[in-house]
Amino acid sequence: MTENMHVLLRARPDPDVTETLFEPVAADMPVIGDGQMLIRVIWLSLEPAMRGWIAEAANYSTPVPLDRPMTGFTVGEVVESRHRDFVVGEIVQGRQGWRRFAISDGSDIDRKVDPSLAPISTALSVLGINGATAYVGLMDVCAPKAGETVVVTTAAGAVGSMVGQIAKIQGCRTVGVTGGPDKVATCLDSFKYDSALNYKAIDGIGPGLDEACPDGIDCFFDNVGSDQFDRVMERLNVGARIAVCGTIGMPSFPIPMGPRVNRQLLVKRARIQGFLILDHYHRYDQIIEILSDWYRAGHFAYREDVTDGLEHSAGALVRMLAGRNTGKTLVRVGADP
Amino acid sequence: MTENMHVLLRARPDPDVTETLFEPVAADMPVIGDGQMLIRVIWLSLEPAMRGWIAEAANYSTPVPLDRPMTGFTVGEVVESRHRDFVVGEIVQGRQGWRRFAISDGSDIDRKVDPSLAPISTALSVLGINGATAYVGLMDVCAPKAGETVVVTTAAGAVGSMVGQIAKIQGCRTVGVTGGPDKVATCLDSFKYDSALNYKAIDGIGPGLDEACPDGIDCFFDNVGSDQFDRVMERLNVGARIAVCGTIGMPSFPIPMGPRVNRQLLVKRARIQGFLILDHYHRYDQIIEILSDWYRAGHFAYREDVTDGLEHSAGALVRMLAGRNTGKTLVRVGADP
Repeated sequence: MTENMHVLLRARPDPDVTETLFEPVAADMPVIGDGQMLIRVIWLSLEPAMRGWIAEAANYSTPVPLDRPMTGFTVGEVVESRHRDFVVGEIVQGRQGWRRFAISDGSDIDRKVDPSLAPISTALSVLGINGATAYVGLMDVCAPKAGETVVVTTAAGAVGSMVGQIAKIQGCRTVGVTGGPDKVATCLDSFKYDSALNYKAIDGIGPGLDEACPDGIDCFFDNVGSDQFDRVMERLNVGARIAVCGTIGMPSFPIPMGPRVNRQLLVKRARIQGFLILDHYHRYDQIIEILSDWYRAGHFAYREDVTDGLEHSAGALVRMLAGRNTGKTLVRVGADP
Repeated sequence: MTENMHVLLRARPDPDVTETLFEPVAADMPVIGDGQMLIRVIWLSLEPAMRGWIAEAANYSTPVPLDRPMTGFTVGEVVESRHRDFVVGEIVQGRQGWRRFAISDGSDIDRKVDPSLAPISTALSVLGINGATAYVGLMDVCAPKAGETVVVTTAAGAVGSMVGQIAKIQGCRTVGVTGGPDKVATCLDSFKYDSALNYKAIDGIGPGLDEACPDGIDCFFDNVGSDQFDRVMERLNVGARIAVCGTIGMPSFPIPMGPRVNRQLLVKRARIQGFLILDHYHRYDQIIEILSDWYRAGHFAYREDVTDGLEHSAGALVRMLAGRNTGKTLVRVGADP
């Protein structure tokens, strides 16, 4: 493990994401210069959005170039430093990508991680981009009020589980939509949803939503965008707010057809808004601070789905995109410090 | 014309709105009591939303009951009064419906009209609900900034033409979408759109939008909801805001299918919001005041499409719903005072 490795993106989805799109290759150990540091990656985060990152089509970011290391959020340890703001032994959350060792000038570091607060892997989930995504989408876009009903899709996932838990802190009734009885149980037992529905049920989630949302739906945090979205849209209250965080249930291309939302938005004076956490980096420290306070107060349960070894990242990604993960999907790239 | 007449709603659309849904009938002249007044209706306003008002299905308001006078916004003259706040001769804008004469206790009066400011019929268009609808949808929901590009559907209509003109006051580039070369000319000549597109063109509005919106689309005020909506959605800028004011291009039932908007909203961090002017009545006086100032400053052109005689209201409504009107559709129910 003292040898370097990169995992390169070799091809684009056609249309599925498969393991063969990626190739692990040996890489030279980088040599740092002035103002740089060497980071040993410990944890790599896998995101549903990676499907979009590697697609050809125009997206919210430039596609990951072919034959380069796949990009990704990481937690690592500074093992050498000629950078005045970082010293050896510090733990950092950054964007080192699918690498065992990476050079950094600090510009791809998001923040320093305090290992005394929580396990450092949480800097990639509860106290990281997933938590911040949940916070912005729920608090800014949905703006729930106490007593309102909040529906969350991918409710057992890394972002969804945080939405549900933050909504509980706000005094809302929380309804999670997830895939399969095990995840339903996780939603109820670990993430304390008031109700949890299995979208794979024979009659879909419509009847379950009717039962779980006797007062209708005020807020909807959606990661899916398919018929789960449609069933929720049918049950909106006047003034409902919908945050579009992801579209994992929709093929990227061509744009799929679905029921037009215009009339429902009009009749219910409702709002759908897409958001990207990328637009909110200037508030990142402040949001992580709030989430850390809630973490200390015991509000957050979380689950990690850990795969060992950088060379197995592609398989873990494919498994997650198929919904066969439970909780935050992480790759353990190196040993804890 | 000193005899009373009501036009009753006799049946619901199945699915089209036809003249035979309505029947003009003779009615007794009402006798007012204490706290009441008698209003002689002069102008009746016809709205695209009337299709929804008379439909069976759940809507944003209770459907107009069968065998009762059709509801509608009116301008009339107080011809008798035992109400302390109104005197004979005053002009009022209210909701007297499809009647020649109506009793009122003041609760269905929206405001008094100053006949010295503008022709009193404008209290139903530029300085009335159409102007207020345009104002709320554009200023509150779209919130355009100077230099941004604003696209408006039904651009030559009573609401759309006001959206275009208010957007010009804000310093925006305005692009109107309308049906046919005559309305395109009206958009350019009367309403001073920077560009106007005919949605009936063989290749649709896509190529025209590309030409008219070289910097993309920041704001979209939509009254249609069909493929016109889809073509605009394809050309949004990051941070675009879309106001859903109407859905006249969509059948009410069943909900039609169209391209799912989720991914575009996500990638563009865009927002779609439905609104009803009904929710903003508490601000009505303030908005009319602003519009009156702009009217005095010469900012507003308007067109009226006038049908004479209450008994011809149903025909005028059908004609308007088919898009065969030019400008605000009004029925002259009685002579000017």
